[in-house]
Amino acid sequence: MSLGIVTPQSMHFQEPLKLSSGASIADYTLVYETYGTLNADRSNAVLVCHALNASHHVAGIYVNEQGETTSVGWWDNMVGPGKPLDTNRFFVIGVNNLGSCFGSTGPMHLNPSTGKPYGASFPVVTVEDWVDAQARLADALGIRQFAAVMGGSLGGMQALSWSLKYPERLRHCVVVASTPKLSAQNIAFNDVARQAILTDPDFHGGDFYAHGVVPKRGLRVARMIGHITYLSDDDMAEKFGRMLRNGDYQFGFGIDFEIESYLRYQGDKFSEYFDANTYLLITKALDYFDPARDDDGDLSKTFARTQAQFLLASFTTDWRFAPERSREMVQALVSNKRHVTYAEIDAPHGHDAFLLEDPRYMRVVRTYYDQVWRELRAGAQS
Amino acid sequence: MSLGIVTPQSMHFQEPLKLSSGASIADYTLVYETYGTLNADRSNAVLVCHALNASHHVAGIYVNEQGETTSVGWWDNMVGPGKPLDTNRFFVIGVNNLGSCFGSTGPMHLNPSTGKPYGASFPVVTVEDWVDAQARLADALGIRQFAAVMGGSLGGMQALSWSLKYPERLRHCVVVASTPKLSAQNIAFNDVARQAILTDPDFHGGDFYAHGVVPKRGLRVARMIGHITYLSDDDMAEKFGRMLRNGDYQFGFGIDFEIESYLRYQGDKFSEYFDANTYLLITKALDYFDPARDDDGDLSKTFARTQAQFLLASFTTDWRFAPERSREMVQALVSNKRHVTYAEIDAPHGHDAFLLEDPRYMRVVRTYYDQVWRELRAGAQS
Repeated sequence: MSLGIVTPQSMHFQEPLKLSSGASIADYTLVYETYGTLNADRSNAVLVCHALNASHHVAGIYVNEQGETTSVGWWDNMVGPGKPLDTNRFFVIGVNNLGSCFGSTGPMHLNPSTGKPYGASFPVVTVEDWVDAQARLADALGIRQFAAVMGGSLGGMQALSWSLKYPERLRHCVVVASTPKLSAQNIAFNDVARQAILTDPDFHGGDFYAHGVVPKRGLRVARMIGHITYLSDDDMAEKFGRMLRNGDYQFGFGIDFEIESYLRYQGDKFSEYFDANTYLLITKALDYFDPARDDDGDLSKTFARTQAQFLLASFTTDWRFAPERSREMVQALVSNKRHVTYAEIDAPHGHDAFLLEDPRYMRVVRTYYDQVWRELRAGAQS
Repeated sequence: MSLGIVTPQSMHFQEPLKLSSGASIADYTLVYETYGTLNADRSNAVLVCHALNASHHVAGIYVNEQGETTSVGWWDNMVGPGKPLDTNRFFVIGVNNLGSCFGSTGPMHLNPSTGKPYGASFPVVTVEDWVDAQARLADALGIRQFAAVMGGSLGGMQALSWSLKYPERLRHCVVVASTPKLSAQNIAFNDVARQAILTDPDFHGGDFYAHGVVPKRGLRVARMIGHITYLSDDDMAEKFGRMLRNGDYQFGFGIDFEIESYLRYQGDKFSEYFDANTYLLITKALDYFDPARDDDGDLSKTFARTQAQFLLASFTTDWRFAPERSREMVQALVSNKRHVTYAEIDAPHGHDAFLLEDPRYMRVVRTYYDQVWRELRAGAQS
């Protein structure tokens, strides 16, 4: 069952937030959604962290004045009444991160110190900064400890970061299709995407808002590149193969193959709604995430700081954050005698699999949250 | 030993060339180089076909007036006196393809019918068109049958095409790191690169020559994307990993990681010398290559037309044209009882491995050409 119509809320924070870069952000707003009911001892809260292209709108729907659905939450198959993360049991929070373009303070908002949009002057934010901002939201909502913090891909990095920065504030950490750090190839793809945006003449050094233009060409190419890395080679082969749009080669530079049509469409759509500065910021947060960096890359040493129990899941055809990356984390957690459940799901859909309905994947998450729920009730009764 | 200084030659063809698209090119020039000596019965010629970014300058060096080396042939480790393809034995020909930007007639040349550069009006050419043009060059040089036609990647496709279009004109076909057709993912990467060029405002619909500008931004991004696909994930990890340029994160959009510096440099360099229209044409030739297309994708049926003996080689970490693609060809050839030698080289360098010095790879090619040479001498004596 779906949650039905949901409504975003927002909270303003007056106290400046010190960032990893040394800069700080004077004051800011976070937009968030909640589903389900916080129990009396505030022990059933689950924070769901979003990845690159998503937001606080995790589950449920938005409708327009005519009552038509305009938007479905990005993890609506995962979160809701009776869903794997069951909102009849848990109080689920989705929060839009700082620097995003879906409501929380970001580059397109006015910089209070200049009265103009932040643009290029919006500070570079890290996964750790996001987690700090999320922790303040948790404080404001009166949540001392989460039953779980959960995310996929970049969202998984935030869950990991929670387990390291605030180890006592989560009982469970659910990390799907993620990695403890980006590889050179991951960074390379991100940088090409950034270069496409940065060199678009309509980018104007990040201050395109004042020029009344949007660097759509750059965003479009950036999204096309990203999209290729979200899908598996096999999945693309099966869905598109060498299928032609018009029956035969056109001998020009329009559309020949269906895959071209699909990617260009995805790129066009993305360039209509996504903010170019946000894209730069989020890819940078991805690149910078490397919690073992201060431990000479020794993930076992880093994970010694964790206290939570872990569920990790990866997908066999994910070549962006391959199962090896998850296994590396599992090993480092096991070496610290942490309680870890690991599922490697044989799914054809590449990195995108973490967003898709796969019965085995859903069952793993459901079973895990059943256990979280049993613990929670046992704790309440004891 | 290197060939030393070599000099390109050129040949003009007056007779129009009918192209796969149905269009034709009125008259054209091919630039080529030859190394070694054609024997009396003209049986020791080997044609070496180039890939995307290369030319007729296969081996040897160019020098400037001061006698300094300005350019080394792209397969100088493979071709020369005593090299795997030994120019003491074979008469080797490198030829620049139609539509390229290294001397043969291409988009930057004057269209005789308009007196202006071809630009966007240069016809889309295919691998088969290139092979037809090469066959005319062979005719002009008096070569009825090649001892071998050889190439890597897109060059391998030309060798394959020779074995299908002119089966009686080559005794051996040497196909390295190639594929019988591009996958959806391959096409996707090509199309993103093309979109980066096509949407660069300096592209001017392909007629940028008249505007005195070059779509460098698009070319740069296109090359960066391409370059990622030429290297293996492991190789990038080993060479660059997460190495930082300046010791610490810069919290900006300049260069943080060495891999960014490397890719941007490669992109910049490429955008200085490569022609944008040529890039479009060559990626299209790659996308269109699919010789089994008229046989309902049945490669065995297609390869029934071949008469040559084959050497195929692939590299384990090549994820652009993975070993599976070569094995598919080997199987289709074996099913036709063709004589096939296949080497799958365990090399870390991804697709680029075909250009690099790897002792096992070099030994395979050397051994193969030793055999070609023995056959050739046996033929001469019989």
